[in-house]
Amino acid sequence: MQYHKIDQNDLDILKTYISDDERFITKPTEHWDHDQFKTVRAMPDLVIQPVTNEEVTKVVKYASDHNIPLVPRGNSTGLMGANLTVDGGISLDMIKMNKILEYSPESLNMTVQAGIRLKDIEEFLADKPFTYMPAPAMHWAAIGGNVDTNAGGLKAIKYGVTREHIRELKVALTDGKLYKFGSKAVKSASGYSLKDIIIGSEGTLGVVTEVTIRLYPRPRKAINAIIPFPTLDDAIKSIPAILASGVVPTTVEFMGRKVIQLWEKYYNETFPISEGDGFIILGIDAFTDEELQAELKQALAATKPFNAMKAVVLDADSEEAKKIWACREALLLAIQKSTPKMDEVDICVPINHIPDVLHRIDELEKEQNMRIPNFGHAGDGNLHIYLCSDDMSDEEFKKKSDYVITELYKTAKSLDGNMSGEHGIGYARKDWFESYYGKDYTDILRKIKRVFDPNYVINPDKIFPAE
Amino acid sequence: MQYHKIDQNDLDILKTYISDDERFITKPTEHWDHDQFKTVRAMPDLVIQPVTNEEVTKVVKYASDHNIPLVPRGNSTGLMGANLTVDGGISLDMIKMNKILEYSPESLNMTVQAGIRLKDIEEFLADKPFTYMPAPAMHWAAIGGNVDTNAGGLKAIKYGVTREHIRELKVALTDGKLYKFGSKAVKSASGYSLKDIIIGSEGTLGVVTEVTIRLYPRPRKAINAIIPFPTLDDAIKSIPAILASGVVPTTVEFMGRKVIQLWEKYYNETFPISEGDGFIILGIDAFTDEELQAELKQALAATKPFNAMKAVVLDADSEEAKKIWACREALLLAIQKSTPKMDEVDICVPINHIPDVLHRIDELEKEQNMRIPNFGHAGDGNLHIYLCSDDMSDEEFKKKSDYVITELYKTAKSLDGNMSGEHGIGYARKDWFESYYGKDYTDILRKIKRVFDPNYVINPDKIFPAE
Repeated sequence: MQYHKIDQNDLDILKTYISDDERFITKPTEHWDHDQFKTVRAMPDLVIQPVTNEEVTKVVKYASDHNIPLVPRGNSTGLMGANLTVDGGISLDMIKMNKILEYSPESLNMTVQAGIRLKDIEEFLADKPFTYMPAPAMHWAAIGGNVDTNAGGLKAIKYGVTREHIRELKVALTDGKLYKFGSKAVKSASGYSLKDIIIGSEGTLGVVTEVTIRLYPRPRKAINAIIPFPTLDDAIKSIPAILASGVVPTTVEFMGRKVIQLWEKYYNETFPISEGDGFIILGIDAFTDEELQAELKQALAATKPFNAMKAVVLDADSEEAKKIWACREALLLAIQKSTPKMDEVDICVPINHIPDVLHRIDELEKEQNMRIPNFGHAGDGNLHIYLCSDDMSDEEFKKKSDYVITELYKTAKSLDGNMSGEHGIGYARKDWFESYYGKDYTDILRKIKRVFDPNYVINPDKIFPAE
Repeated sequence: MQYHKIDQNDLDILKTYISDDERFITKPTEHWDHDQFKTVRAMPDLVIQPVTNEEVTKVVKYASDHNIPLVPRGNSTGLMGANLTVDGGISLDMIKMNKILEYSPESLNMTVQAGIRLKDIEEFLADKPFTYMPAPAMHWAAIGGNVDTNAGGLKAIKYGVTREHIRELKVALTDGKLYKFGSKAVKSASGYSLKDIIIGSEGTLGVVTEVTIRLYPRPRKAINAIIPFPTLDDAIKSIPAILASGVVPTTVEFMGRKVIQLWEKYYNETFPISEGDGFIILGIDAFTDEELQAELKQALAATKPFNAMKAVVLDADSEEAKKIWACREALLLAIQKSTPKMDEVDICVPINHIPDVLHRIDELEKEQNMRIPNFGHAGDGNLHIYLCSDDMSDEEFKKKSDYVITELYKTAKSLDGNMSGEHGIGYARKDWFESYYGKDYTDILRKIKRVFDPNYVINPDKIFPAE
């Protein structure tokens, strides 16, 4: 695409839309040139930090009318470069639109501005009987970014992902108007669900400015346990049995001894469970202790045929429990510390096919002589797979990782899985999209993109190639 | 729209696509001219009952290429005329595509053809540890129709509606190709969710041929109770308190003495609870009896400040319990028996605003001198409101019901609700859509319609007017 490069005339006009000088940044610093992963870097020509819907709608319309790329940005916890101005233009940094607009326990709704962090929502709700149920690990992510990637998290098995907890969105479209998609009511059979098109669209269709989330009664009781198995294979194979046991856990995570050893090495720690090579972390919540214990007992019984060893309850105030949690939470950082560069594959497959993916990873590790540590949301079939550069040159790493990424996508596709469970496609993976989902399918997405964004200026070159 | 009228040449070609003569019906009977409600009647020029995806894709492509309207049809349990050939053309009757294609407990998925009835899915799962959780009251509805209207049901509070239980769809589009939308994996952050556009689209974008549903562990324990209140107002006002009590019920339904009296009259019965004018039916499920009882106790405690009287547990094998269930299940039929003609409004409002709607209904009943009985899914804010013709002339009933419908939509809109919670817009309500949601919003839907159906032949003139 050919875009108009922002000039002084544009700056003069855009400036009139924004009431404070310090929210109109004509010389952006590197703060705005990357996301969490830093694999893609792109410096915007202009950063605008709106504080009102009106500022957003005016800027979006101007960008569309004048063929200037505009990329909405949350708190930059993304991994796939979705928030970067890869074609230059305006970075619309939403982080100052961070207010709670309405807390309505009587309708079980709460409305916030899109730039508020999950952390701030959690803090606001801490002393109230409700919670925002999705639990993405990145607590400092902006809720608008969570909407744009349909963020998953640790409780998807029981409670679903972001999509299931969003009632209403306010979205600025390229015509300069603010639209309400969805409603504060629970159900709808009233035409195509535009809300559901926006959720997961990675900011490519419009700019989400307000989000009404579902307030969910905070569970009274919750328990987490770690179950060791002789092998990771045993651990993984127990998962369908757990999920068929009649218990609906909140969380089923897996991790293997190999990843844990990275944590031991880079954090100078010792994992408290010395036996077993594979581990399941199981979370359960309920209204009563009796229910909690009965469900835990049932789930543990389901793991026995898979050689499960003695489970350790993690909520106890013991050193052992604390250390295991610390390890789980630091896994990604431990992997990052172990290699100069890394990349990630976030495929999601039917839950019974995780062993097929792990098997393919083993093959690729050997074949490519590349370390590929992984862990993930076992109960969702969503794996986080890390490709480590170690002592490779940049060229070699790029070549090998392109190959490994392609192979893992082939595996996911053959198992009827998705390219990404929760991290999105963004810029980093867009070139794989069409071969994964096909040209006909991608063309439908291209046409939908044009319905919302006829001039192709809103977060261009993300998810799929323009043509 | 001007459409091509099916001629002998079309019949000759279409006939070659369908292997059995008896599934190619050139002289349709009145079986195909109405839905459950019979407010709209339209006879198709041709009925085709496909049994394979290939038959569907060929017919869909032919219809699109030759400008012939094509309307997919399930088991005709709809209320808004969505399945009728209002512009003539082909009724694509899916009811013979009714096979179970795959039962996969290890992936928690089950794939069926779109024409299978809920009832048949329930029967197949009856002796298995899983269930299809959404519980629309119409057990003989086809699953494809449920997808097309995003059907709700009695358990939406805890488990969501159809949308939350659909993993993957196979959809025939006008290019003659069969598309896979969604996947058998649990989560996706992989581009716009086309699956979620199809769900709720009332068969206007393509023809759903296969549906992969989520298998959910069947709850071990369940209990239903009816709670009487001195007034319906008391009953309704207790609902936000129940939902804020920390309990997540499966079901919270309301009904008033007035509606119950219709059942008593037309079924020659006596409702076993003589005191109270408003009733809440509460459903709870759990893994243990302890949990069930603790949640029920908590929910009942929450109703006390609203003058709740003694609750009756409905699962007991008593005459009383059976009679109350029989009444609840026959409410719609009792209303139907009470009037020569009726129409329905299915608005869904934020749960705390149900009293505002009931208040407006009272005003309209008096002002228009029309009986407007109602009941509904209180926990979802979804009301089923019936407009009764009684002794009015057809003209008078039409005039008055148009007015009442318009007024109730105004009320729903002012409360940030939806036109329909679960019954859809169909043909009967399409003329209200644009004034409810606005021209700009409706234009987005029109453009999305054209993305999927450029020639405007797939179930035309439904949901919103073409221009």
